[in-house]
Amino acid sequence: MDEKLVLHEDLRSGNCYKIRLTAALLGLPLERKTYDIMKGETRTPDFLAKVNSNGRIPVLQADNRFLPESNAACFYLAEESRLMPEDRFGRADMLRWMFFEQYNHEPNIATLRFWLYFIGEDNLSDEQRAQILPKRMAGEAALELMDRHLAGREWFVGSSATLADISLYAYTHVAEAGGFLLADHANICAWLDRVAALPGYVPMD
Amino acid sequence: MDEKLVLHEDLRSGNCYKIRLTAALLGLPLERKTYDIMKGETRTPDFLAKVNSNGRIPVLQADNRFLPESNAACFYLAEESRLMPEDRFGRADMLRWMFFEQYNHEPNIATLRFWLYFIGEDNLSDEQRAQILPKRMAGEAALELMDRHLAGREWFVGSSATLADISLYAYTHVAEAGGFLLADHANICAWLDRVAALPGYVPMD
Repeated sequence: MDEKLVLHEDLRSGNCYKIRLTAALLGLPLERKTYDIMKGETRTPDFLAKVNSNGRIPVLQADNRFLPESNAACFYLAEESRLMPEDRFGRADMLRWMFFEQYNHEPNIATLRFWLYFIGEDNLSDEQRAQILPKRMAGEAALELMDRHLAGREWFVGSSATLADISLYAYTHVAEAGGFLLADHANICAWLDRVAALPGYVPMD
Repeated sequence: MDEKLVLHEDLRSGNCYKIRLTAALLGLPLERKTYDIMKGETRTPDFLAKVNSNGRIPVLQADNRFLPESNAACFYLAEESRLMPEDRFGRADMLRWMFFEQYNHEPNIATLRFWLYFIGEDNLSDEQRAQILPKRMAGEAALELMDRHLAGREWFVGSSATLADISLYAYTHVAEAGGFLLADHANICAWLDRVAALPGYVPMD
């Protein structure tokens, strides 16, 4: 790609890390511009007008175009790469896991990590506190489903790493900061090691 | 496509309707197998073992392969079609709106429709009742963002209908069953009319 790529990110966000990891695995240079979401830096009028009217990071900037949504940004970087399955069903199945990640995994596992590790349980609202148990159960169900799927498989789709693995890796490998126990999920633990051993891998900051 | 396509669906689900609408717009034959999610028909051991271990519909079956996640199924059907933008950024931008749909739109607008229209407010748990107001506000924010994006545009991405439009149409056009007022959003109303006028369009059951 001959565009200038800039990642608008918060270093604590696994959604941002997905994009950085995808770029690193593909050897794509990525400038980084950091924001502190806890100080409201992605809700300023300037950010809303120029970067993302949804007030969220990550946003991938390609020259003067802006692409929100972490998994869409990963898809943009990787569309022509080895991180994409070669067959039509495989590509759709990769997206299936990426939609699962945003619907069943991230709202539970990433949210509990944010609440418990960064905000702190004592600082939560009553409404947030009432959501801890349902999010714990839904996040655990997502991990169990992943662990069962990985039985006898090395990667989520096909026979090599795809964006499905990168997307699910981002918040799974730090799930313990949200109070989830990974040691119970042996297949997940082995898969996390495989992702971390990929050539070009970079850790989360 | 020369595969036999079967949609495992609940007729009330907008997520299922997305797939049916995509197939109809593309002229693809689709068998339909219906389940009643309110009777637990997608949580039976047989369904979990054969169709989707996540216990959810829709699932698109292509011969003997099963693809959960509505937007992934739409992608599978449409990958080579006119419902897909021709340029790389456009394809990623289409996915951006489909991820937005599953993260910001469906969990609020579809869930309130399900709770208020199908379950009934009197039958909700206290935990669900406490979520009505936050889901109302988040759903309204999603509609406002869509309405602003559609100002001066006919379609979400590029100059013709894509899967982004189909994905967002499914629960937007029935949002009033969840207590949302569409009349305040003139750009959305005009866009809903454009989707319904597409050749091959089929209504929700």
